[in-house]
Amino acid sequence: MITFEEALKRVNKEIEVMAYENKPAELYEPIRYILSLGGKKIRPVLVLLSYNLYKEDVELVLPAALGWEIFHNFTLLHDDLMDQADIRRNQATVHKKWDENTAILSGDAMLILAYQYIAQSPAEKLKPLLDLFSTTAAEICGGQEYDMLFESRLDVTEEEYMEMIRLKTAVMLGACLKTGAILAGANNEDAYRLYQFGINTGLAFQLKDDLLDVFGDSSVFGKKTGGDILCNKKTFLLIHALKNAQGETRKELLHWLNVSDPMQNEAKIKAVTRIFETLGIRKLTEEKMQHHFNQAVASLNSLSVIPEKTRILFTLAEQLMQRDI
Amino acid sequence: MITFEEALKRVNKEIEVMAYENKPAELYEPIRYILSLGGKKIRPVLVLLSYNLYKEDVELVLPAALGWEIFHNFTLLHDDLMDQADIRRNQATVHKKWDENTAILSGDAMLILAYQYIAQSPAEKLKPLLDLFSTTAAEICGGQEYDMLFESRLDVTEEEYMEMIRLKTAVMLGACLKTGAILAGANNEDAYRLYQFGINTGLAFQLKDDLLDVFGDSSVFGKKTGGDILCNKKTFLLIHALKNAQGETRKELLHWLNVSDPMQNEAKIKAVTRIFETLGIRKLTEEKMQHHFNQAVASLNSLSVIPEKTRILFTLAEQLMQRDI
Repeated sequence: MITFEEALKRVNKEIEVMAYENKPAELYEPIRYILSLGGKKIRPVLVLLSYNLYKEDVELVLPAALGWEIFHNFTLLHDDLMDQADIRRNQATVHKKWDENTAILSGDAMLILAYQYIAQSPAEKLKPLLDLFSTTAAEICGGQEYDMLFESRLDVTEEEYMEMIRLKTAVMLGACLKTGAILAGANNEDAYRLYQFGINTGLAFQLKDDLLDVFGDSSVFGKKTGGDILCNKKTFLLIHALKNAQGETRKELLHWLNVSDPMQNEAKIKAVTRIFETLGIRKLTEEKMQHHFNQAVASLNSLSVIPEKTRILFTLAEQLMQRDI
Repeated sequence: MITFEEALKRVNKEIEVMAYENKPAELYEPIRYILSLGGKKIRPVLVLLSYNLYKEDVELVLPAALGWEIFHNFTLLHDDLMDQADIRRNQATVHKKWDENTAILSGDAMLILAYQYIAQSPAEKLKPLLDLFSTTAAEICGGQEYDMLFESRLDVTEEEYMEMIRLKTAVMLGACLKTGAILAGANNEDAYRLYQFGINTGLAFQLKDDLLDVFGDSSVFGKKTGGDILCNKKTFLLIHALKNAQGETRKELLHWLNVSDPMQNEAKIKAVTRIFETLGIRKLTEEKMQHHFNQAVASLNSLSVIPEKTRILFTLAEQLMQRDI
């Protein structure tokens, strides 16, 4: 069996040797750039680990694994443009380093490139892989659309939020795991359970992200905490604060949501964090996260493979929950 | 055999009944909108006509035909955003009717939708169809990149220009025809010749477009003539004028290229048009267009099917050359 580190190394090597023979260079240089910025590479690694539950020759799934990593980075490229984000992984985003048109067009070329990698999979698996890839890709666009629509709303419900993060984050993890299962010829039940493991891990992962933005150690977390608070992002935490806050606390929360003066950034982060604590939102979020982690583990335990094999996925999910970064 | 009108009617009906069940509606409404704006539908019709050279059951190729039409409209959607164009087919462009983020994200969803239609083709043809689709799509992105890069250059050569329009316009026509051939199980030589017919028809088509922008009858052409002249677009005509103009004529041409005062629009169009006439650029362009039309016809005549069958494609190419619009 392959280890996490071995899978990561294999994926990284494959990304390094990717050929960009296509012209013009102006179109492909931004693609090379964003793929070189690093990142955890969790998605392609999941393809390898999932396949490896059933089969050993992981080389066979490298094109599909890379297809997913390229697609993931395509979404970052276009999302950063839509969100007008300047920095990605401590480097300038593509539309900042080049310009907006380059970000649009290189992103498009990147989505096509992702399909080209998926299409290198064995021909007899192509149809189910493509259908999974396209369905998931469309869902992720839907998730980004909901995320943007929620910006101008104060009445986003928990249910709507969970559906948004399912689409924007969780379905890709589920689809990567299912890709490995399809390529390995796993039975439909296992493919479904691996997908569900990905969905619940993804939901827990995003809730952890919401928590880290507020309660993370910024020296470890890598980025400053409080970013979500400053832009009034409708996270799981804020949605519950808006739902539960009463009287003076509610008044105070609504006051701070109207504050956008940069001079008051620190005060706003401190005040809203305190409101979250007062309302018990931290505990509520941790419980929700734990619930989805438990669901993920249950899916894993119901797989038809021997328990030793699933330990690597259990450990990975656990690390994603326990991370400080 | 199916007629052009029958093929067009069948394609239009299929576009009308397209289901947009996907959520959120905000993401799919712009897709429905741009597909409803009309257009000649040449590309999907070419898929049907090419297939129909060999087989009768054209229903089989409708998904692939629609995939190409959706892809074509996706390129219009993102190109209009990159070019900051306000009007498409006499209606507001998507980024004007909605906003830029909607244009980016709905465009992305549209590219995925195009792949979903292509993937509905028979499984045994999926791999060659997908490879053709992705290769062509990447070439078209390359063509748009060259087009944008040429804006800031005065030294674009004829060779560079022909390569740009090959990528931006011609390869899609070639690929549509080849899609029909692949689905019909035509032999490789025929598939190649149909592709070449598309390439040369596409090149001639674009040269005709360049001519119409200057010499077209604006009451018939639908849009005002001279648009390319006003934005100094490096068309076949301007490239040759820059190459051939000497002495006073050259001085005059360079003068007008520096004029961007809207008050002088009419004078600029008139003057540059006269320079084109003086230098014999109109004849030169018409000869080049005729050359590619002849090449297209030669490819058509070398097909393994009986001549009566190819007449429909000959007539279509001829009409594209002779059009006033």
